[in-house]
Amino acid sequence: MVDVAAELARVLGRKVVVDTDRMSPWTRDQSPLAKVGTPAAVVRATSVEDVVTTLRLASQTGTPLVTRGAGSGLSGGANASDGCIVLSVEGMNQILDIDVAHRTATVQPGVINADLAKAVAEHGLRYTPDPGSRDISSIGGNIATNAGGMSCCKYGVTADHVAALTAVLPDGSVIRTGGSTRKNVAGLDLTRLLIGSEGTLAVVVEATVWLRPAVEEEATVVAMFPTLEQAMRAVVAVTAATTPSAVELMDRTTVAAVNAMTGMDIDATAEAVLLVTYDGASAAADAASSEAEAAAQGASEVFRTDDRVEGTELMSARRMALPALERLGSILLDDVGVPVERLPAMVADIQAIATKHEVTIGTFGHAADGNLHPTIIYDAEDAGQRERALAAFTDIVRAALALGGTISGEHGIGSLKMPFVSEMYGEAEVALMHRIKHAFDPQGVMNPGRGY
Amino acid sequence: MVDVAAELARVLGRKVVVDTDRMSPWTRDQSPLAKVGTPAAVVRATSVEDVVTTLRLASQTGTPLVTRGAGSGLSGGANASDGCIVLSVEGMNQILDIDVAHRTATVQPGVINADLAKAVAEHGLRYTPDPGSRDISSIGGNIATNAGGMSCCKYGVTADHVAALTAVLPDGSVIRTGGSTRKNVAGLDLTRLLIGSEGTLAVVVEATVWLRPAVEEEATVVAMFPTLEQAMRAVVAVTAATTPSAVELMDRTTVAAVNAMTGMDIDATAEAVLLVTYDGASAAADAASSEAEAAAQGASEVFRTDDRVEGTELMSARRMALPALERLGSILLDDVGVPVERLPAMVADIQAIATKHEVTIGTFGHAADGNLHPTIIYDAEDAGQRERALAAFTDIVRAALALGGTISGEHGIGSLKMPFVSEMYGEAEVALMHRIKHAFDPQGVMNPGRGY
Repeated sequence: MVDVAAELARVLGRKVVVDTDRMSPWTRDQSPLAKVGTPAAVVRATSVEDVVTTLRLASQTGTPLVTRGAGSGLSGGANASDGCIVLSVEGMNQILDIDVAHRTATVQPGVINADLAKAVAEHGLRYTPDPGSRDISSIGGNIATNAGGMSCCKYGVTADHVAALTAVLPDGSVIRTGGSTRKNVAGLDLTRLLIGSEGTLAVVVEATVWLRPAVEEEATVVAMFPTLEQAMRAVVAVTAATTPSAVELMDRTTVAAVNAMTGMDIDATAEAVLLVTYDGASAAADAASSEAEAAAQGASEVFRTDDRVEGTELMSARRMALPALERLGSILLDDVGVPVERLPAMVADIQAIATKHEVTIGTFGHAADGNLHPTIIYDAEDAGQRERALAAFTDIVRAALALGGTISGEHGIGSLKMPFVSEMYGEAEVALMHRIKHAFDPQGVMNPGRGY
Repeated sequence: MVDVAAELARVLGRKVVVDTDRMSPWTRDQSPLAKVGTPAAVVRATSVEDVVTTLRLASQTGTPLVTRGAGSGLSGGANASDGCIVLSVEGMNQILDIDVAHRTATVQPGVINADLAKAVAEHGLRYTPDPGSRDISSIGGNIATNAGGMSCCKYGVTADHVAALTAVLPDGSVIRTGGSTRKNVAGLDLTRLLIGSEGTLAVVVEATVWLRPAVEEEATVVAMFPTLEQAMRAVVAVTAATTPSAVELMDRTTVAAVNAMTGMDIDATAEAVLLVTYDGASAAADAASSEAEAAAQGASEVFRTDDRVEGTELMSARRMALPALERLGSILLDDVGVPVERLPAMVADIQAIATKHEVTIGTFGHAADGNLHPTIIYDAEDAGQRERALAAFTDIVRAALALGGTISGEHGIGSLKMPFVSEMYGEAEVALMHRIKHAFDPQGVMNPGRGY
C-alpha cells in the first residue's frame, strides 16, 4: 500500500505538511459544530501542476481529497476527514488579468474577494458578489459554495458573475468551461455545474469573472419596526415596488450585540431594523418611495441618507452581525431561504421555535432574497442547551422547507446540512447527483460525504 | 424484437402517428440544411404520463428519441432520425399558474413564449426572454436551447429566468430541480444542466419561470452608419456607457429586404442601422447619451423617439429580418457570438468572407451581446453556390472562434454545428459531457448525435 503522505512529500517537497500539529491551521473551516478529522497530509499548492499531481495521487490511491481556499466556510465543507489529503489553494492568489474593455477579471482561486474588488475599483469597475465574508473569503471558495451576499437581490449570486473556469478533474486532466461571450449555448453548462458543487467534482484553478461599471449614486433608507412581521411585510412591499441593491435585516438581539461590540448607537428598542440601499440613476427616487412604504407598514422611525459614508457605516455595522453575536456565547448559525412574500411567516416561525426550545435566536440576513441567518446563542458546556440549540436549528430548516424554501441560501450543505438534503429533494434527484459526481470522480475521492 | 411503433400505438392509442405522410409535420425544425430522417412513430403527448410511457419504451428498446416543442429550431436539434420516436410536447400547452406576489409563472413546455408574455402582461408583469421566434417558439424549446433574444443584454438569457423544472429522465423517473427562492445552494445545479442540453438528457414537462414588473418608460435611438465597423464601434461605446434593453443591428442587405417585404421606408443607403432601446427610469437620459455617442462615432443620421408605438414598429421591422432575407433566395443562417469589443473585427471578417467566397451575406443580430446572425443568401439549385455558401458558413464560425467567441450564441448546436464542437472545446471537455449524458441516459437514446 502506498504511503500517500510520504509520496506527496517526495514529489512536492516543502509544499507538503504531514506533522499533525503543523497541519491544524488547514483542518477546519469556521463552522463550530461540523465534524473534523485528522488528515494524512496538507498540500499547499502554488501551481496548476501541484493540483494535478495531488489529484492524480488521490485518485490512484483512492484517498479522500478535501479542497480548501481561505477556510471561511460555515458548513464544514472544507473540514478534513481522517486520513484525507487537504489541498489548500490559498497560495494560488494572483490576479492574472483585468480586462477593462471586456469587463472581466481572471484570477487564481485563492484571491480574496475584497482584494479583487479593490483591484478592479481602481479601473472604475465593480466585482459585485459581496458575501458577508468578503474580507476573508476567496473567489475559489465563493465559487465552490456559489456564495451570496447583500447585493444579490439586484445583481445576482456568484454564479451570475462567472464567465469561464479552468478546473482539474480527479484524473488530473484540465478542463476549460464557459467562454468570453454573454451568450453561449455550445454543449452542457459545465461552468454552472461546478459552481456550488462544494469540492465534490473538480478543483477550480482559474476563474474569469464579469465586472460591472462602478456606480455613482447611492441612497440608503433605515427603518425601525415595532415587530419583525411588520419589517418583513415592508420588505415584501419595497421589493415589489423597487429594485434595491440590498435589503438587510437586523433584529433587536443582533442590534444590541452590534452596538455592544462597535460602540455604535443604533436604536435597540425596535424589534427590527431594515437597511435598504439603492444605487444607480433612480437611487434617490427609489429611496424616497421605500421610505414612504416603510412608514406605511408601521415603521416607528425611518430616515434616509444619500451620504455614501453614512450608508457605508451602517452597512459595516450590519456586516458585524455575526462576530457581534459570537461574543454572546456559542452560536449555531443557520442559513435558510424562503420566497420573499413568505418572510412574515418565516420570522413568526423563528420566534415560535425560540419560545418552544427556550433559546435565544438573533436573526439577521438578506431579506430581499428571502435569505435569513437565524443564529442560535447557547452555552456549549451545557448539554441541555446544546441539545435544545440543535433542535431549534433543525426546526428552522424544516420551517423553511415547509414554506417552499431551501435548506441553504448561500452557505452550502457541507457536512452540517447533509441530513436535510433528502428532505428537500427526492431519491431520484439525489441519485442523479451521485451519478453525475461519478462521471467526474469515478473513485469517489472528491470531498466525500459533503454536499449531497 | 419489439415493434416500437406498434407498442406505442397499443399503449397510447390515437396520440401516436405512424403513417409516414401523416408524420411529416413533426419530422423537422426550421433549419433548411440539417439532416432529416423518417421516424418510426410520432407521439403527441398531452400528459406527463404520456412522456413517462414513451421514454420508458425508448430506453427499454434502445430506440432514439427526439423531443420537439414548436419545431421552430434553427440547428436541426428536433429533426427526426431514421427509426426514431419523435415525442411532441406541443399539446402540453397550459399555463398552470401565475403567482403575482411571487412573480413566477408555472407552465407546460408547449406554451408559446408570446402567449406567456401576453398572459402575464395582464397582471402588470413581463416574461423578458424574447427570442426573435417568440410568436412561434415554445418555452420548452426555449429551455432546450437556452434561447436568447433582444433583451438579453439587460435581462439575461432564458436560463436566467428559470426557477425550477420538472423533467422526466429516460428511465421514466420524474425529477424536480431548482426551487422558489432567489438563492439556493443545495446540491448540484440540475436546472442549469438541463437548460441548453437540447433534448440530450431529459424531457422538461413543467417549468417555473421568473417574471419582472412591467416597465413604463421606454426610449429608442435609431442610428445609421456609413460603415459596419463604425456601427460596431458605436455599440462598444454605447454598451460601455449605458445598459440598453436591446441593441439590434441590420446591415444594408437586411434593411433593403425588410423594406421590400414590409413596405417600410428605412434608410437603405446606410451600410448599417442600429436600434438601441432603453427602459426604466433613466431611459430618456440614457437614450440622449447614446444618441450623442452614435453621432461621435460617425453616424450619418441619428434620431430618438420616446413614443412606444414608433419604437415597437421599428423593433417589429427588425424581427422581420429573417423572413425578409428568406425571400431573396435560399439562406444559410449563422449564429455566432464574440466579446462585444471584438464586433468591429467580426464584421470586417464577415465582409472579407463574403468577398472571398463571392456570396451575399445579410447580417443582423443582437449586437450588445456580441451575437450576430450573418445570413448567407444563395441559390440552392446551383451546386457551386451551395458549396461556396457552406464554405462561407464554416469560415464565419471559425472567425468567431478565432476572436475568442462561440460557435452558437443562441440557436444551439443541433446537428448543424456538431462539426465545430471539438474546435471550440478540447477532448477532455467533450468526453466529460458524454459521461454526464451517460449519467442521465445510459442507453444513449436521448437525441443522439446532437449537441456535443
